[in-house]
Amino acid sequence: LTGIEISSRIKLASKKDDLDTTIVRVGDIKIGGEAIAVIAGPCSVESRKQLMDIAKAVKQAGAKMLRGGAFKPRTLPYSFQGLEEEGLRLLSEAREETGLPVVTEVVSPETVGLVEEYADVLQIGARNMQNYPLLRRVGEAGKPVLLKRALSATIEEWLGAAEYILAGGNGDVILCERGIRTFGKLTRFTLDLAAVPLLKEVTHLPVVVDPSHGTGHRQLVAPMARAAVASGADGLIVEVHNEPEKAKSDGAQSLRPEDFKALMGELGAVARSVGRRL
Amino acid sequence: LTGIEISSRIKLASKKDDLDTTIVRVGDIKIGGEAIAVIAGPCSVESRKQLMDIAKAVKQAGAKMLRGGAFKPRTLPYSFQGLEEEGLRLLSEAREETGLPVVTEVVSPETVGLVEEYADVLQIGARNMQNYPLLRRVGEAGKPVLLKRALSATIEEWLGAAEYILAGGNGDVILCERGIRTFGKLTRFTLDLAAVPLLKEVTHLPVVVDPSHGTGHRQLVAPMARAAVASGADGLIVEVHNEPEKAKSDGAQSLRPEDFKALMGELGAVARSVGRRL
Amino acid sequence: LTGIEISSRIKLASKKDDLDTTIVRVGDIKIGGEAIAVIAGPCSVESRKQLMDIAKAVKQAGAKMLRGGAFKPRTLPYSFQGLEEEGLRLLSEAREETGLPVVTEVVSPETVGLVEEYADVLQIGARNMQNYPLLRRVGEAGKPVLLKRALSATIEEWLGAAEYILAGGNGDVILCERGIRTFGKLTRFTLDLAAVPLLKEVTHLPVVVDPSHGTGHRQLVAPMARAAVASGADGLIVEVHNEPEKAKSDGAQSLRPEDFKALMGELGAVARSVGRRL
Amino acid sequence: LTGIEISSRIKLASKKDDLDTTIVRVGDIKIGGEAIAVIAGPCSVESRKQLMDIAKAVKQAGAKMLRGGAFKPRTLPYSFQGLEEEGLRLLSEAREETGLPVVTEVVSPETVGLVEEYADVLQIGARNMQNYPLLRRVGEAGKPVLLKRALSATIEEWLGAAEYILAGGNGDVILCERGIRTFGKLTRFTLDLAAVPLLKEVTHLPVVVDPSHGTGHRQLVAPMARAAVASGADGLIVEVHNEPEKAKSDGAQSLRPEDFKALMGELGAVARSVGRRL
Repeated sequence: LTGIEISSRIKLASKKDDLDTTIVRVGDIKIGGEAIAVIAGPCSVESRKQLMDIAKAVKQAGAKMLRGGAFKPRTLPYSFQGLEEEGLRLLSEAREETGLPVVTEVVSPETVGLVEEYADVLQIGARNMQNYPLLRRVGEAGKPVLLKRALSATIEEWLGAAEYILAGGNGDVILCERGIRTFGKLTRFTLDLAAVPLLKEVTHLPVVVDPSHGTGHRQLVAPMARAAVASGADGLIVEVHNEPEKAKSDGAQSLRPEDFKALMGELGAVARSVGRRL
Repeated sequence: LTGIEISSRIKLASKKDDLDTTIVRVGDIKIGGEAIAVIAGPCSVESRKQLMDIAKAVKQAGAKMLRGGAFKPRTLPYSFQGLEEEGLRLLSEAREETGLPVVTEVVSPETVGLVEEYADVLQIGARNMQNYPLLRRVGEAGKPVLLKRALSATIEEWLGAAEYILAGGNGDVILCERGIRTFGKLTRFTLDLAAVPLLKEVTHLPVVVDPSHGTGHRQLVAPMARAAVASGADGLIVEVHNEPEKAKSDGAQSLRPEDFKALMGELGAVARSVGRRL
Repeated sequence: LTGIEISSRIKLASKKDDLDTTIVRVGDIKIGGEAIAVIAGPCSVESRKQLMDIAKAVKQAGAKMLRGGAFKPRTLPYSFQGLEEEGLRLLSEAREETGLPVVTEVVSPETVGLVEEYADVLQIGARNMQNYPLLRRVGEAGKPVLLKRALSATIEEWLGAAEYILAGGNGDVILCERGIRTFGKLTRFTLDLAAVPLLKEVTHLPVVVDPSHGTGHRQLVAPMARAAVASGADGLIVEVHNEPEKAKSDGAQSLRPEDFKALMGELGAVARSVGRRL
Repeated sequence: LTGIEISSRIKLASKKDDLDTTIVRVGDIKIGGEAIAVIAGPCSVESRKQLMDIAKAVKQAGAKMLRGGAFKPRTLPYSFQGLEEEGLRLLSEAREETGLPVVTEVVSPETVGLVEEYADVLQIGARNMQNYPLLRRVGEAGKPVLLKRALSATIEEWLGAAEYILAGGNGDVILCERGIRTFGKLTRFTLDLAAVPLLKEVTHLPVVVDPSHGTGHRQLVAPMARAAVASGADGLIVEVHNEPEKAKSDGAQSLRPEDFKALMGELGAVARSVGRRL
C-alpha cells in the first residue's frame, strides 16, 4: 500500500487496502466520513451553570458533541479531581438540554459501567493509553472509545493500545492526537500533526486532533485546528470555557465562546477547501 | 537547601533538610541506608524450574531480593501476558526456597489485594506511573511500593505520583529510574542517571536504578549498574535469565547467572569506593 | 502582546506590536505578505538536464522560486557532497531559463561571496543554525537569508540565531521550520507546525515550512503542506524530483512533478480559505 | 563482535575487533589507556589572574590538562564572546606556568591555524559537530581533536562526524559526551552515560565525559563524574572557577577549586575500583 510499514502483528487496527475505512457512529454523528466532527466543551465539569452555558454556546456555534471531564487525572493529589458521578449527571442533563452527545473520560475499569450509563463516548486519556486492564474493559463496552495518544507513544504503541480495544470486540475506536512531549518550552506539548496523514496510511480508524492540550495556549488553538482539518483530520476536540481565567483546569488553553464561534466559521471554509464539510 | 527547586505543592515527597532520608525496610533488608540493595530475577515468571534456577543463582551471587513479573503489561494483546496468580504462587515458593523477598508488578486496583498476599514489594510499572486509582490503592496497601518512572515523566510528575501513594498513608515508596524515551536508536531507552543525585537533592525517598530496561542490551547492563552505584543509587533492579535466548520477554537485556555473579563482584568494589557496601 | 513570552534580550527579531511584520522581497516576490510563496526544486543539483526539467516543471505548476543544493552537508564524507560551483552555475542558468529566483545553501563563511554571485536567497541549513561565524558573514551579505531551524533548537535559540544576522545589518531573514528530532520512528523528523503561529506571536519575521524534510515521506508532504498554509505559514519549500527513485539524496521525500502540480491546486484552495492566495 | 550494529559505511571510526583501541597522546598524557585523564579549567578565559589561579589549583589537585574557552559560541550576539587571540595567549602562558597541555575550542576553518599555534587539543563544540568544512580543516591539523556530541546527534551521526576528521588524515579523535537535549527541565541537558559503554562496543576511539554541561548544576557534577568513570570513560572534562558567582559563563555548573580537589580524591577511588587509575 505504502512505503510506510508498521508491524504485521497489529492485525485489527491496520489498514487492509485504500478503501478500508471505519466510520464510527455516535447517534446521528459520523466520525470518519465526509463531515468533520467538532467536539467542544470545558476541560472539567465545574457546575450546572458553567456546563449549561458552555454547552449551549458550543451547540449554537455548530459543535456536534460535548466534551467535559468528570473524573480528572491530575499530577498532584491536591488538585481538583472532578465532580465524579455528579459531573456525569450534569453532562447527561446538558445532553438532554442541547441534544449533543457526551464525550467524557474514564479512568479505571471499575467505573466504566458507571460512565457508560451517562456518556456516549468513553475517553481514554493520555496517561492511561497503556493501562491494559482499562483498555480491555472498554473493549467490552457498548460505547465508542476515543483513545488519546500517550505523551511519548510511538504510532505502533498507540495502535497496539487500539488493538486491545478492538480485540475485546469493540470496533468503534477513534484515535486522538493530543501532542507529544519534546524539548520545546514555549508550548505545553508538540502537536504531531503529521501523525494524521501517517495514520491514514496505516490504519482504517478515524483520527481527531486536540489542539488545546496540543499547544497549551489559546492563541495557538485556532491556527492548529485549521491545520488539523487541512491535514486530513476527521474531527477536533476543543476546550471552551465561558470564564477561562476562573477555570479549575486548563484555562490558558480554553477558547472563549465567541472565539470558538469565530473558529467554527474558519473551519468550515478550510474543510470545504479540502473537499469536506463540518 | 539547593539551587534546584521543585514545586512547593509536592509536600510529602520533598526533602525538608539534609538529614531528611527515608529508609524503606523489607524484612531485614534496608533500602536507602548504607548498603546497596540488589534486586534480581527474570523479566517474567515462566515456569517453576526457570524461576527456581534463577532465584537460587541470584541468591548465591548476593542478590537481596527477587524480581519477576506475573502480570505483564505488553504493547500488543497477542504477547505473553504473564502467568498471573500461578506466577505469584511460584514467586512465593521461590521466596520460601531462597529466603529472598519478592518484588512483582501490580497492574490494576482490583488485583492489589491478591498481589499483596504473595509479594513483599509492589511494583508500579512505567506505563502505570500516572494511573491514579492504582496509586491510591497501593497507598492503602501494607507493603512498600517500587514506583518506576514513566517514559517521559519529568522529575516533578514522578514525585507527584509518589505523592499520591504517600498521601494515601503508605510512606514506603522506592523510586526507580528505568530510562526515558529520547531520539536515541541504538539503546532501548536513555538511562537518566543524573536523576539519582538530583532526586537526592529534592526528595527523602530512596532511589534504585534499572540498567536492564534502561539500556536494552546485555553488554551495557554491567557498566551502567556500576555507574548507578557510583552516582549514589540506593539499589539496582537487574534482569537475569538462565536461558536469555529463550526468554518470553526481554531476553536481549537479561544477564546470564555467571555474568550477574561477576557483576556483583564489581559492584562491591564500586560501592566501597563511594563509602557504601552491598 | 500575548501570554507567550520570549527573552527580552532578543531585541531585533522580536515583535514590537501587532502591526510589526517584515516582508522580505526577492525581486518581485514578497515573502510575508498576503501571497504564499512556494519554493520548489530538487534536493541536490545533479545535472543540467535534471535541473532544467525540474525547474520548468515547478515554474509551470506555479512555484515562485527554485531550490537546489550545490553544497550538500552530509552525515558521512563518502556521500555525494554536491556539484559545488558547477551546481551554482547550473542554478543560475535555470534562473535565466525560467525566471525563478534561486535559493541555495551556503555552508562556510569563505564561500558566502561565491554563493552570493549566483543565488538570490542564501539558505542556512539546520546543521549550521548555530554556526555563528557563518551567521555573522551572511549578516553582511546583500541577499536575503532563509534560516532553517536546527534539529533540537528551541524557539528562542532559533531567534537568537536570527539575531546574529539582523545584528550584522541584514534585515531580510526568513525562518524555516523543517522538523525537530523526537522519539518518533516512522517519520524522519516531527514537523512542529505550532511553531508557525507561535512565531507569528513573538517575531515580525516571515515563516516558511519544509514539509519534505519535516516528514521524510512523499505521501505526507501534500497533507502537511496544506496544513502549513492553514496554520499561517508565509511560504513552503518543497522537494521535487523528476526521477525520485534515482535521486542522489532524499528521493523518498521528493514529489514527482505531477504530484507537485496537483498539490499547487490544493494549496490555492486552502490559501483562499484562510484569506490568502498563492 | 556484538549485537549492537552500526552502519558499515562508518569505516574508519568503527571497531574492527575487541583489541582495536586508539590511544590519543598529548605530550606525555595518554587518553584511552589505563589512566583516566581529567581535563579541568574555566568555561571562558576571562583574565590572566582568573586563568592562572584556576590553572594552578587544578594542576595541584591532579588535573592532567587545562580547558578554557577563547572563542565562545553563544546563543545571542550580545553575550560575552571570549577574549579570542588574547585568550589563546593566556592559555599558552598558563601551560608554561603549570605544564598542563591546553584544550580549547575552535569555531571556524579560518581560525584553526591560529588556535593550533597555541593549543594542544582542538575542541569542536556541540553546535559545530556537523560543521563539515570545520571538521575537514581539523582533519588536516597536526593536533588531536576533542569532538563533542551535538545536542541531538545519534551515535551514528556523531561517528559520522569523527569519520570526516579521520578521513582527512587526523587519527587523534577523542569523543566527548556532554549531554543530549530531552524533555527534562531540572537539568540543563540529559547526560547519556550509556553512550560510553555503547561507544566502547562500536568504536576504537577514546571517550571522555563532560558532567558540567551535561547537568548544568554544580551539585550534580561530582556524582556524574564518578558515574562516568565507573561506566568506563577514558577521561573527564570539568568546569572549575574560583569565583563561580562572577563567572562570565556557566557559573552555576562550575566547581570551586576545593570541590574539585575533593572530587579528584573520590575519582581516584572509583577508578581503582574498576581497575584503572587517574
